[in-house]
Amino acid sequence: IETQLQAAVSGGSANRDSFRQALVNTLERRLFYIPSFKIYGGVAGLYDYGPPGCAIKSNVLGFWRQHFVLEENMLEVDCPSVTPEIVLKASGHVEKFTDLMVKDEKTGTCYRADHLLKDYCKEKLEKDLTITAEKAAELKHVMAVLDDLSAAELGAKIKEYGITAPDTKNSLSDPYPFNLMFQTSIGPSGVLPGYMRPETAQGIFVNFKELYYYNGNKLPFAAAQIGQAFRNEISPRQGLLRVREFTLAEIEHFVDPEDKSHPKFSDVGNLEFLMFPREEQMTGQSAKLFQIGEAVSKGIVNNETLGYFIGRVYLFLTRLGIDKERLRFRQHLSNEMAHYAADCWDAEIECSYGWIECVGIADRSAYDLRAHSEKSDVSLVAREKYPEPREVEKLVIAPVKKELGMAFKGNQKMVTEALEAMDEETALEMKNDLESKGEVEFHVCTLGKTVTIKKNMVSISKERRKEHQRVFTPSVIEPSFGIGRIIYCLFEHAFYTRPSKAGDEQLNVFRFPPLVAPIKCTVFPLVQSQQYEEVAKFISKSLTAAGISHKIDITGTSIGKRYARTDELGVPFAITVDSTSSVTIRERDSKDQIRVDVEKVASLVKEVTDGRINWQDDVLKIYPLHSSGSAED
Amino acid sequence: IETQLQAAVSGGSANRDSFRQALVNTLERRLFYIPSFKIYGGVAGLYDYGPPGCAIKSNVLGFWRQHFVLEENMLEVDCPSVTPEIVLKASGHVEKFTDLMVKDEKTGTCYRADHLLKDYCKEKLEKDLTITAEKAAELKHVMAVLDDLSAAELGAKIKEYGITAPDTKNSLSDPYPFNLMFQTSIGPSGVLPGYMRPETAQGIFVNFKELYYYNGNKLPFAAAQIGQAFRNEISPRQGLLRVREFTLAEIEHFVDPEDKSHPKFSDVGNLEFLMFPREEQMTGQSAKLFQIGEAVSKGIVNNETLGYFIGRVYLFLTRLGIDKERLRFRQHLSNEMAHYAADCWDAEIECSYGWIECVGIADRSAYDLRAHSEKSDVSLVAREKYPEPREVEKLVIAPVKKELGMAFKGNQKMVTEALEAMDEETALEMKNDLESKGEVEFHVCTLGKTVTIKKNMVSISKERRKEHQRVFTPSVIEPSFGIGRIIYCLFEHAFYTRPSKAGDEQLNVFRFPPLVAPIKCTVFPLVQSQQYEEVAKFISKSLTAAGISHKIDITGTSIGKRYARTDELGVPFAITVDSTSSVTIRERDSKDQIRVDVEKVASLVKEVTDGRINWQDDVLKIYPLHSSGSAED
Repeated sequence: IETQLQAAVSGGSANRDSFRQALVNTLERRLFYIPSFKIYGGVAGLYDYGPPGCAIKSNVLGFWRQHFVLEENMLEVDCPSVTPEIVLKASGHVEKFTDLMVKDEKTGTCYRADHLLKDYCKEKLEKDLTITAEKAAELKHVMAVLDDLSAAELGAKIKEYGITAPDTKNSLSDPYPFNLMFQTSIGPSGVLPGYMRPETAQGIFVNFKELYYYNGNKLPFAAAQIGQAFRNEISPRQGLLRVREFTLAEIEHFVDPEDKSHPKFSDVGNLEFLMFPREEQMTGQSAKLFQIGEAVSKGIVNNETLGYFIGRVYLFLTRLGIDKERLRFRQHLSNEMAHYAADCWDAEIECSYGWIECVGIADRSAYDLRAHSEKSDVSLVAREKYPEPREVEKLVIAPVKKELGMAFKGNQKMVTEALEAMDEETALEMKNDLESKGEVEFHVCTLGKTVTIKKNMVSISKERRKEHQRVFTPSVIEPSFGIGRIIYCLFEHAFYTRPSKAGDEQLNVFRFPPLVAPIKCTVFPLVQSQQYEEVAKFISKSLTAAGISHKIDITGTSIGKRYARTDELGVPFAITVDSTSSVTIRERDSKDQIRVDVEKVASLVKEVTDGRINWQDDVLKIYPLHSSGSAED
Repeated sequence: IETQLQAAVSGGSANRDSFRQALVNTLERRLFYIPSFKIYGGVAGLYDYGPPGCAIKSNVLGFWRQHFVLEENMLEVDCPSVTPEIVLKASGHVEKFTDLMVKDEKTGTCYRADHLLKDYCKEKLEKDLTITAEKAAELKHVMAVLDDLSAAELGAKIKEYGITAPDTKNSLSDPYPFNLMFQTSIGPSGVLPGYMRPETAQGIFVNFKELYYYNGNKLPFAAAQIGQAFRNEISPRQGLLRVREFTLAEIEHFVDPEDKSHPKFSDVGNLEFLMFPREEQMTGQSAKLFQIGEAVSKGIVNNETLGYFIGRVYLFLTRLGIDKERLRFRQHLSNEMAHYAADCWDAEIECSYGWIECVGIADRSAYDLRAHSEKSDVSLVAREKYPEPREVEKLVIAPVKKELGMAFKGNQKMVTEALEAMDEETALEMKNDLESKGEVEFHVCTLGKTVTIKKNMVSISKERRKEHQRVFTPSVIEPSFGIGRIIYCLFEHAFYTRPSKAGDEQLNVFRFPPLVAPIKCTVFPLVQSQQYEEVAKFISKSLTAAGISHKIDITGTSIGKRYARTDELGVPFAITVDSTSSVTIRERDSKDQIRVDVEKVASLVKEVTDGRINWQDDVLKIYPLHSSGSAED
């Protein structure tokens, strides 16, 4: 299996494409997903989850709640998708949540400018054998800096290379920014513009004050939200990976910026996995195994809390069934990170499309809370009460209004405000200069000129006073999960084929762990008989009572075909009723079979699917092998 | 408690208002919900669920999945909210999903026309003592037929009564329809209009063909979906009951229109609950207790499948904690039902706002599938293969083109089409007339005139032929759950107050069943001590491992205060650590306490909260009462 996968994913793009095609065929045929509104021709970038996909999604979200919300006592909230404009102005989305777009000048068809340029470079490099080494280097450089190019630079390159519309070869407009949010209008008057939220995080930030109070005014604490998010992509490609509506699961962990330690860090400190720090990327190395404890202590990861979440995300993804060899944590380069971010790591999963960002784990510092605080005029801060009052030194700038008034007349107010707005360093410099020289030149921005400040016009001093608390804006550490992307990568990592018993065809299997499998087991009577059917129904009832999703298949199809059908849905266990007192249970991947009493089936399946015991180490010890996989072949 | 509630809800509007005020204060203070975007002044009709509300919602949805999807093996799907216009044109929402609106002619503020008229009538009836009996009867009549009034009729009444804008007393525009869907645009070109879905059902209908195939081309089967829906209400009122974005859980049960029996009907047949059939409503009676089996056999409920779902909805709501005395199933009057609907019942729950529709259970016949089939040109049908071919009689209408051409010249085509389009009854009548009289007058709509058809112009006959299958459009029975409304009513039914120990204040309690309680238990050390804290932490860990949401409270607050705090969140069990070997568990409503070994706490709490055993009948038998509720007082 490993070799087969290896071949499928790393053996050139032809293998990758055929692997993906086989997978996608299976996913669509078994309704893991369905292109939305298919009978109307579909809409690019919109997909439905059909029954097995929907069950997997529900299992992934259930486990997410268990692994993060419950384990860390997070405060889960649930906010609407419809969001008034002011919130997204504060967050910066109205201004900056854009992609650069070009239009076919004749047909009006829209394209992402960077995609066209990238496609051009890629094709040239792959197919044009005549280009010089110099040219090749240039094209590679363009691809490397693609994300940093401005509209003007992108436009210039498109002109220079003579890139035209892919469908018509018509010429293209200059690139211009297109906002990716779905716009709408709230209420009937049309005067309150709104958007469908592009992320769930803002709903948490605007509730910070309430949540901090709910948490007993204590830090740190985390809030979490699962919900839909919307991005009106210009031209969605890559199937389930780039869609216009998707489910996000986001955590906002609020922490004192002066203490980002984490009490449970030691629980994950010894975990070892692939990391790809900035340094390694810049020097052309590849991802390396690190212990997360070591990465934090060496300062590769900015702080313990960030490191703790990286470790927890690693556990979450691998328990879902993501292959740890094809999972890495890549640090953002400086030019990828927002200016306010302290550090940022993406959990990237390798699939047939390459390494895909599935979880972002960012230390966003105090940016979001400050932005909303400024826009709403509501203070979003935390307080640390000192056990005893502390003496602190505070800078006091006291302009002497009378002197300033005489000197500057009508401009007095602006000079006064500019003096009061000085930061500590500037103020102390002025204090020194006034003491030594008696006067100093001072630039007043709002006046657009420089004025002379004399010693009698302002008093600058440091005063000691007692403070009872520290007031500060918390930092936020945000793990943000693209649930649909994780699920798609899971499909890729779980999918394999194996020959049928007769050897005449390849059968599809998904090796989902019981935790995420859409159906936990199937129940078949070996042959059509009323007695066996009754046993099957009894077992079905006891499975329902235990809350185990299952399917009963009483068609007369051969047992081999019925196994193949459920393997293709990733059902981990098949129960075959071949007597009225005991039945066989077959495990999907090993095809091992054990014999279990009818009364004990439901509780055994429940224990295995809940993860309390496992097949190989526990079940096979209690129930000896009845027949092994090789017997089935 | 019962009396108190009774007084609160039926004792006049003052009591209702004060009950609701106390409830809403508690809900907002404890963050069950939060007005969305509160720091920006909020947006009418948008609410967040805070931590306890979010947990309750998640529990309600989890139980819905268990009670409906898993129990009935339904096919759950998950479709996007963003929906292209064509889908909602087919469903009729683009044309008909409107409310009538009036505008303040000066300020442009919008109001729902029917709300203004209703408010006017209500206020007149309540406060104007001078109106005549005749006038009072008129106003009552207007309120009764409010939903049936056309825009013109509403406008005429508003003019007649001189109703003005409530805020400004300015005059109002004529009423006009306002579409309640949030509109947007899909993709960057602006040429693909879309809406945020007003219900989740359409996503299922457009997938009928795929789902029918997935189900092995067999009927009946049900598909289900949980998801957000959006209605851009003109002026939302009634708090959580009328909002602009909400979670729906919908089931579409597809069934052969000729066989609406249900194999599991006998499981619910004996259930007895309040029903309010059409007949009782029309004759001024009140809701009555019916056995659902009897209601179906007497033809009050149209069919078994509809009756089965009514019974299952009853079980669902009462197990959540809805008071069965304040739950009724009300049948739609003929004028409330769409023309295509066969029958329709609402589960209505009584709360301080009156009887509120929370679940609609409708037999929508074949309407939706036909509508999408016509619009998309994709056939959405089911087939019943006959075990043996059947002989059927088919009407054959064969126009004789030569004769028709000679008689009607250029009009021949239209006459021919009109003949072919005759229904069976008309055709057989024509056959008789032609045989007896030799000719017949025939009206051709497309010509706008009547022509004479002679015997030689058309042959009408019945032919026998063999058919191997029946092809038909399935009927759909749709139970549709407004999750937010159910949760709000649950809040009202669960809320009560009781005096504190000292008797000096009233304490709030939510009597949520363990199934829906936001947090299942709290853990307190009796006094601050390292030993007790360690025990508390051990119990907390074992609860987490068992998947039980809980809170640990190590503040030094008095035990009474800590109980009160958790009662107000509806936490059913409180574990007090008062020794290192065993602890006490206190039940919220009875205040009964039992003593349990530290090692056994988690598994006991799990069994009770999973509903496998219950406190009164099971737990108190195994663990004798340590101290009873009265002791705590």
